[in-house]
Amino acid sequence: MILSLTDFRKDSNLRIYIAGIDGYIGWPLAMYLTNQGHEVAGCDIYLRREWVEEIGGWSATPIRSMEERLSAFEEVFGKKIGFYEGDLRDPDFVYESIEDFQPDAIVHLGEQPSAPYSMIDLEHATFTQINNVQGNLNILYAMKDICPEAHLVKLGTMGEYGTPNVPIPEGFFEIEYRGRKETLPFPRQPGSFYHLSKVHDSHNITLACKIWGLKSTDLMQGPVYGTLTEETQADERLATRFDFDGVFGTVVNRFCVQADIGYPLTVYGKGGQTRGYIDLRDSLRCMELSIENPPEKGEYRVFNQFTEIFSVLDIAENVKRAAERLGIEVTVDHLENPRIELEEHFYEADHQHLLDLGLQPHRMVNALEGMMRDLMVFKDRESAKKDAISPTIQWGESDKSVKQ
Amino acid sequence: MILSLTDFRKDSNLRIYIAGIDGYIGWPLAMYLTNQGHEVAGCDIYLRREWVEEIGGWSATPIRSMEERLSAFEEVFGKKIGFYEGDLRDPDFVYESIEDFQPDAIVHLGEQPSAPYSMIDLEHATFTQINNVQGNLNILYAMKDICPEAHLVKLGTMGEYGTPNVPIPEGFFEIEYRGRKETLPFPRQPGSFYHLSKVHDSHNITLACKIWGLKSTDLMQGPVYGTLTEETQADERLATRFDFDGVFGTVVNRFCVQADIGYPLTVYGKGGQTRGYIDLRDSLRCMELSIENPPEKGEYRVFNQFTEIFSVLDIAENVKRAAERLGIEVTVDHLENPRIELEEHFYEADHQHLLDLGLQPHRMVNALEGMMRDLMVFKDRESAKKDAISPTIQWGESDKSVKQ
Repeated sequence: MILSLTDFRKDSNLRIYIAGIDGYIGWPLAMYLTNQGHEVAGCDIYLRREWVEEIGGWSATPIRSMEERLSAFEEVFGKKIGFYEGDLRDPDFVYESIEDFQPDAIVHLGEQPSAPYSMIDLEHATFTQINNVQGNLNILYAMKDICPEAHLVKLGTMGEYGTPNVPIPEGFFEIEYRGRKETLPFPRQPGSFYHLSKVHDSHNITLACKIWGLKSTDLMQGPVYGTLTEETQADERLATRFDFDGVFGTVVNRFCVQADIGYPLTVYGKGGQTRGYIDLRDSLRCMELSIENPPEKGEYRVFNQFTEIFSVLDIAENVKRAAERLGIEVTVDHLENPRIELEEHFYEADHQHLLDLGLQPHRMVNALEGMMRDLMVFKDRESAKKDAISPTIQWGESDKSVKQ
Repeated sequence: MILSLTDFRKDSNLRIYIAGIDGYIGWPLAMYLTNQGHEVAGCDIYLRREWVEEIGGWSATPIRSMEERLSAFEEVFGKKIGFYEGDLRDPDFVYESIEDFQPDAIVHLGEQPSAPYSMIDLEHATFTQINNVQGNLNILYAMKDICPEAHLVKLGTMGEYGTPNVPIPEGFFEIEYRGRKETLPFPRQPGSFYHLSKVHDSHNITLACKIWGLKSTDLMQGPVYGTLTEETQADERLATRFDFDGVFGTVVNRFCVQADIGYPLTVYGKGGQTRGYIDLRDSLRCMELSIENPPEKGEYRVFNQFTEIFSVLDIAENVKRAAERLGIEVTVDHLENPRIELEEHFYEADHQHLLDLGLQPHRMVNALEGMMRDLMVFKDRESAKKDAISPTIQWGESDKSVKQ
């Protein structure tokens, strides 16, 4: 049963806990949900800032400390956002902050989100899997013990599915096999230790829903693009981070910066790699829709969270055209692919559930010009870190020394 | 291409590294493979001994220290087995021992193997997943960097698949979906955080084979039963461990002890839970067959390693009958099921690959009487720990305090 959103908002402020509130999506999500009338708190320990620094990048947009962000938000919008500083790997911290806030929903964005970062070497692969799996287990147990009626909205990735030769359903598919019918989880064939960590989480969450009656929405999100939301553009102190390096910068965002600073667009291999993409504003709206339309007790459901499908070459072409409208000349380079992946393949994936809940998607082609214009302001910061744009992490090799 | 085993053995001693050589399967496997002419070394840090002690159990068979085991084996059989003492979670140890031994095959048995242990609480769930995933990642990276031509024989579990309403193939199945055909990994629906750790491993290994060209056989093994092998019975100092507690004792082994000491057989719920089982001697032979018939470079293959399918009630009935032949009266108790699982369900699973390679299975019904007779000798040790037999770990609950 789905409440009409208007009715729903009238009588209910939900208490929403955002794990990873300092991130690219976490920070604008916190502001957006607060302005939609919800009560929001989040946690972070700023690891994303450290990782980007570690690989020699920084955010194109200058971002403020959490303290400054929170007080600027209160100053501009007259509302408070709660904050717990701590590490999701620490079960005491997770239990105490959730106990304190008593959330109706937990949005879990607090994971190491980069495939290349996870492929640097053994140390980074292990860190990624332990960090992500352990944090998620801590949240699951805390929910069971403290708020078993709350709804876990977990950020997964479309990359969990890989690129099978059949259409990708939303999480489950009905098949007939040797004369019997069954609805099964759609098999996962991810392409990096990071993507694998999300698959591990998905499996762990499935069990928690089954044995403890938790409810969860696992969002298989495609790469997100976008610079601004209504809240981030209200004051420069409210900006969200924007990564453009070869490790944390996702392809659309990175290409926009590359166009701006005259760096050739770096297409890996043939560029036929095809994925689903989503605008940052739509990503926030999807999470809102998921939160406001929770699953049943014990239900583990999967939404594919993207709005349009493109190949990397399509994106390069779109960025090139948008740049030309701004008078910028753009070249496209085909680099040797550092990843091991199919460069030409079948790709079809469902993404109906969120549309049915009311999502009205933005289109990438309409967003790119504005993004590049927004980013122009930070051209100096972008040029200063242009050495971090090229891909240096190879899927097929890694440092032979054991790092501790 | 499969070599005839006879030819193969003539010209090749393989160097086989057994991770978890101190365990129930690891120790007899090391002796067996050595006696088959292979050169064997292994590693262990004795965590299994600690865990069984932690939950209040002990091995029915008195087991010796690794030092005593190794020298007794040399004394009895005139052959040496190599040993590295260390923790698989330590990448330096894994790299150094594999570098030193230069294996042709690595049999990875070194994981926390108990579902109930993983369900004790958050601490044990997290420990199980990190211990298992991290050790396996260390081995994968060490293989890539040191012995990329070696063959990883990894112990998985039939429990990875769960109990779907369709037959279970060996790892992969060809399906038609929306008019397209594809061979996909069979979806995993495991029922505990332990079983999940094995699913995580399977996914991680799949990627390592794909991107680094490693070769692996992932053995989906059913519960193993049995007291003796040719080597363990040669000298009491060569005995392998035999757990019968409710946490580490698998059902057949545990029931045999329960029958011996007049403890009612503890059937969880209806007892219709149906699984594939395998004799310890067959388990060793399966691993030998896997090792001597390696996959191609880059191939990740799955063998379902069991020989007969029984419900828990079938097993109770078989144990009861075998006990009666020994003049022992046995009663069967139906306990409330501590697990959350289907108690009546469809179950069919392929197990053809290992038969095709030459496995000639033992039958459980022929083994039980001998097992009970072997175990009689240790009746005092069994009775002394009979309080550890009852299941105390509930899938649906756990300690609310956060343990560190």
